Amino acid sequence: MIRFESDYLEGCCPQILDALRETNLEQTLGYGEDPHCAKAADMVRYIFDCPDAEVHFLVGGTQTNATVIASQLRPHQGVVCAASGHINVHETGAVEQSGHKILALPATDGKISAAQVRALLEAHQRDFSREHTVQPGMVYISFPTELGTVYTKKELQDLHAVCREWEIPLFVDGARLGYGLEAAGVDLLPKDLARLCDIFYVGGTKQGALFGEAVVFTRSALAEDFRYLIKQHGGMLAKGRLLGLQYEVLMNGGLYFKLARHADRLADRIRAAFRAKGIPFLVENTTNQVFPILPTAALAPLAEQFGFELWQEVDDTHAGVRFCTSWATPESAVEALESYIEKNL
Amino acid sequence: MIRFESDYLEGCCPQILDALRETNLEQTLGYGEDPHCAKAADMVRYIFDCPDAEVHFLVGGTQTNATVIASQLRPHQGVVCAASGHINVHETGAVEQSGHKILALPATDGKISAAQVRALLEAHQRDFSREHTVQPGMVYISFPTELGTVYTKKELQDLHAVCREWEIPLFVDGARLGYGLEAAGVDLLPKDLARLCDIFYVGGTKQGALFGEAVVFTRSALAEDFRYLIKQHGGMLAKGRLLGLQYEVLMNGGLYFKLARHADRLADRIRAAFRAKGIPFLVENTTNQVFPILPTAALAPLAEQFGFELWQEVDDTHAGVRFCTSWATPESAVEALESYIEKNL
Amino acid sequence: MIRFESDYLEGCCPQILDALRETNLEQTLGYGEDPHCAKAADMVRYIFDCPDAEVHFLVGGTQTNATVIASQLRPHQGVVCAASGHINVHETGAVEQSGHKILALPATDGKISAAQVRALLEAHQRDFSREHTVQPGMVYISFPTELGTVYTKKELQDLHAVCREWEIPLFVDGARLGYGLEAAGVDLLPKDLARLCDIFYVGGTKQGALFGEAVVFTRSALAEDFRYLIKQHGGMLAKGRLLGLQYEVLMNGGLYFKLARHADRLADRIRAAFRAKGIPFLVENTTNQVFPILPTAALAPLAEQFGFELWQEVDDTHAGVRFCTSWATPESAVEALESYIEKNL
Amino acid sequence: MIRFESDYLEGCCPQILDALRETNLEQTLGYGEDPHCAKAADMVRYIFDCPDAEVHFLVGGTQTNATVIASQLRPHQGVVCAASGHINVHETGAVEQSGHKILALPATDGKISAAQVRALLEAHQRDFSREHTVQPGMVYISFPTELGTVYTKKELQDLHAVCREWEIPLFVDGARLGYGLEAAGVDLLPKDLARLCDIFYVGGTKQGALFGEAVVFTRSALAEDFRYLIKQHGGMLAKGRLLGLQYEVLMNGGLYFKLARHADRLADRIRAAFRAKGIPFLVENTTNQVFPILPTAALAPLAEQFGFELWQEVDDTHAGVRFCTSWATPESAVEALESYIEKNL
Repeated sequence: MIRFESDYLEGCCPQILDALRETNLEQTLGYGEDPHCAKAADMVRYIFDCPDAEVHFLVGGTQTNATVIASQLRPHQGVVCAASGHINVHETGAVEQSGHKILALPATDGKISAAQVRALLEAHQRDFSREHTVQPGMVYISFPTELGTVYTKKELQDLHAVCREWEIPLFVDGARLGYGLEAAGVDLLPKDLARLCDIFYVGGTKQGALFGEAVVFTRSALAEDFRYLIKQHGGMLAKGRLLGLQYEVLMNGGLYFKLARHADRLADRIRAAFRAKGIPFLVENTTNQVFPILPTAALAPLAEQFGFELWQEVDDTHAGVRFCTSWATPESAVEALESYIEKNL
Repeated sequence: MIRFESDYLEGCCPQILDALRETNLEQTLGYGEDPHCAKAADMVRYIFDCPDAEVHFLVGGTQTNATVIASQLRPHQGVVCAASGHINVHETGAVEQSGHKILALPATDGKISAAQVRALLEAHQRDFSREHTVQPGMVYISFPTELGTVYTKKELQDLHAVCREWEIPLFVDGARLGYGLEAAGVDLLPKDLARLCDIFYVGGTKQGALFGEAVVFTRSALAEDFRYLIKQHGGMLAKGRLLGLQYEVLMNGGLYFKLARHADRLADRIRAAFRAKGIPFLVENTTNQVFPILPTAALAPLAEQFGFELWQEVDDTHAGVRFCTSWATPESAVEALESYIEKNL
Repeated sequence: MIRFESDYLEGCCPQILDALRETNLEQTLGYGEDPHCAKAADMVRYIFDCPDAEVHFLVGGTQTNATVIASQLRPHQGVVCAASGHINVHETGAVEQSGHKILALPATDGKISAAQVRALLEAHQRDFSREHTVQPGMVYISFPTELGTVYTKKELQDLHAVCREWEIPLFVDGARLGYGLEAAGVDLLPKDLARLCDIFYVGGTKQGALFGEAVVFTRSALAEDFRYLIKQHGGMLAKGRLLGLQYEVLMNGGLYFKLARHADRLADRIRAAFRAKGIPFLVENTTNQVFPILPTAALAPLAEQFGFELWQEVDDTHAGVRFCTSWATPESAVEALESYIEKNL
Repeated sequence: MIRFESDYLEGCCPQILDALRETNLEQTLGYGEDPHCAKAADMVRYIFDCPDAEVHFLVGGTQTNATVIASQLRPHQGVVCAASGHINVHETGAVEQSGHKILALPATDGKISAAQVRALLEAHQRDFSREHTVQPGMVYISFPTELGTVYTKKELQDLHAVCREWEIPLFVDGARLGYGLEAAGVDLLPKDLARLCDIFYVGGTKQGALFGEAVVFTRSALAEDFRYLIKQHGGMLAKGRLLGLQYEVLMNGGLYFKLARHADRLADRIRAAFRAKGIPFLVENTTNQVFPILPTAALAPLAEQFGFELWQEVDDTHAGVRFCTSWATPESAVEALESYIEKNL
């Protein structure tokens, strides 16, 4: 069985295993106040060219999203988000658990537009009964989105401009940030991303680390007392240096981006294999997730050899499925899949 | 500098590093639904002799406490706890964040008694205005406590009996469970602990793992839908097998308990060294934390060679401090400290 | 200016003023434990033919909704609701404040169907990742809805059947319950309503009381410890007898229903006046809210003489507006409006 | 039976009944946006000499406390409070329900001191692990306290100075504010109170109104978006003018203070009657609550003729009890009690 269900099927890139071993008996203070975290934060600031940023390391994405959002909102405020956004559909109500409504907007290929956000903000402002409704207090987007699409620089500039104008933070969920920045046709550099939002994170869990998300507050005022909130949300790892050292490894020599390019390139090959057989896609994209629409009848035999995820029913005889590549996917796995597609689909 | 500040200064026992390397490229499903977690849960059930228990793995203690407590209480209920309990003083209000008051009782050497709990429950029942107060809905104790003391079997039996009588769960925070069970003079076996509470956890973070806490619901009814709550609280690790495989290693051949014994024995040596110099203690205990009361003037020179934690001021010229040993503490470190104590204190 | 903006523009029916005066110097215990509340609860049970029900009195609707919902759900559960439902759009996120997500379904004329609810429940059950999503834990509907429509007996039976089958409570927001039960064409008796849901409330604020909502738990097991939750949510009125005596008055001799019939009949007249001029409606209904679609140009002159609410823009030149009648609306006010409509629209 | 259990046993002062009747058929917009609320707010500002204050009206005390506190704190912050404070012991965890820990200080006769608050704030600041603890974010006191005592002007000045220095708001629960300001020996004028805190409320429920609490934010910046929070907490009364008109009546001609003086004077008589018989008190005070310590054997016969509240056991043969007078207490009731005390105690 060759698995493509997700990009967190394996452990971590071998360089991280080496670093764990090398540093294992170092004695460091806990909770992120160690030299590895300090150095990793510097490296993140350097690579994303945001020298004034404040960087914090958390263990996982749901935890990061809930903690960041709780840190920014007052009780009566909610977070604007694509209806398909991870916080809205796949985090068991973690945002609501901390008291905040998600203000969901219809998404197009996983994305929302500046025009949608502006319309929502204006409608709230115009509403004479607005005090009876949740006040939009921040905007959350995913880059890439849950459907593997990416915002263009222009789209991000427009979203950022609306948020600046209305003085609410723009938060970018970067659980797969590298796969997004390295994808074919993407016109955003790391520094562009940092410049065009208020808070973002550099996802590690799905991109070569055992676990970990590096949250970047591009202005330190946004991060006031954030460590209290990390602790309160159960996200303050006792052996915090494990996060720091993983990011030291990933940021070193651009490894993070190399691993992402590897996955994107393999995903491109899978897309090409489906396309060659005339198979359509749920969505056009260039990141590490591939969403072909397959005949339902083809799924069972395919599933005997390959792991993938059923994404959504399309019609009575077709379903959209997801194949993920990752930093760990071997070329041989993709070759096997290409071969299967060519012969059997 | 030889550090004794805490028991999470180092990485993990080498067997875990080996297991990480060996399993690194295995492909497993995420979120704890993998063979390692399944096997580790079996091992925990076996060792604690609770075949009907349900076992879940979380990353850290604060997360575990908040998630377990939220899973057991209705909104108007609170958790009974020693005033010195970790959830009351050292988790940034994580329990309150999920909506619940902590009903703190005065502690004696970190412990609360069955009589205290019974008195609180009876007072609530008797109070004609009880609907204006928080209803006690569960009892939380730490084993060992934050002061390194342990409940005797009799004390635990009594607490358990009160909780059974009033039909509220007894939850044991076992962040340092092994250090407690292996300590000199402790009359509880692992199976006794499992039999004398409703929920407990087997702490990994402070006892040889990189991170991880294994929560044991001794009756599965108590764990209904617990995985939803783990996810909601941001505690569901994507690469869940990292938790499972660490517990496979720790439970294998009693390694968990051997590592704990090592630390307890070294702490005994440190205690003996202080005692030999007539130095008193904040509290008498036999686990891996040592709390001598030192002259304030002695602290600065001591701190040049050894890391320790300032615990509390005792009087104008004395302070209680904490030395922690761990699974990782080398004999040589203790020898150096013994030598320093003998010569300088 | 004659106001039709809402059904809470005036004070209360004169019988309540009389009762307030008569009982003013009675000394009663507080917080709802007085003879007036006891008697009013009996009257509600009698009129809705639910002898085993438990009845509680709260001050307002948002408070009632949030408290009831919090009393029924576990932390990982959400409440299924029409997207247009009051809790979803007009309560400033009170449900989310208590930690729960609203699972909104697209509404048809303000209503959701049993088929929609069943589909959502089945989809959740089928979802292999359901632990990553919010579990549907109860169903909330409004009777009448926010658009003044009502569920038929058949529709309610079907919703009730689904909820029973899935063992989740069906909760009916009855802020305007009387206006619904008395509306033309409604085939539900009070006892039918009580039989076809688990929890409902008999709205007072909009139907002749100064304030007050009587919550009916049709089985007392659903109300366990509910008074604790009322207190916690700030809804336990110190002088609770004010609620009891208002319901004594309203339940006496069917006054509650007479007042509602009055409003519905006047609303019918307003509907007829618009219809006579060929004016369409946002929605067809027979309760005390009327939703004509008017030319935008007609609004300003109309607003000089009559108060109404702008409901939604329909197109560039038309808008839907709302006129409310109430227990307090005088015939003369409706005559003036009829006359205006006939002459000016 | 003559009842002294509380100060909310009766309805309201007759002037309010009159005002309700006179205004009953006025049509006003809802939710506090009516002329009565506007005028009442002006009167409060005038009487407390705080022209820049923002005034909001809520229904009850628990609701007011929870809403005000939630409006001021960030998620990781808690509220400093006397252990005997109402929010800590008699509101079913409403503050915790909104996510905040109460940082309780030992109280002396219901009061806390500036020195205690300063020590707590300094200890937090000094604590290297402070991010693992709840950050003190505001101070809550009651005036008068739950034991009927009052802060002197000097004590309030000192508390205010600490709060200013540390830039956290001082919030005064004034559920019985009038009884406090009018009590014998009190050296604070209404304007002093307004000047010496950041937020306070003028309690109506216990002082002549049917219900209602007028919250005064002495600087409007503290009240930003407060109406959203009122709505979210279920405290926005649909017929808001009921609150406004009650405060119009109470503030008019100093009625609020006259009613309070009446109660305080009667309480003084009761205190004198007990003192004349050599009966000691739980606490010395001069407001409308009297706390004699009586022989347990005397309670049952006393309770046949008079209602009072059992407050706390003192020893095996004595108990502290509470007698409350109110705006509504007739002289004859006090005379009857005086006579009983003289003859039977």
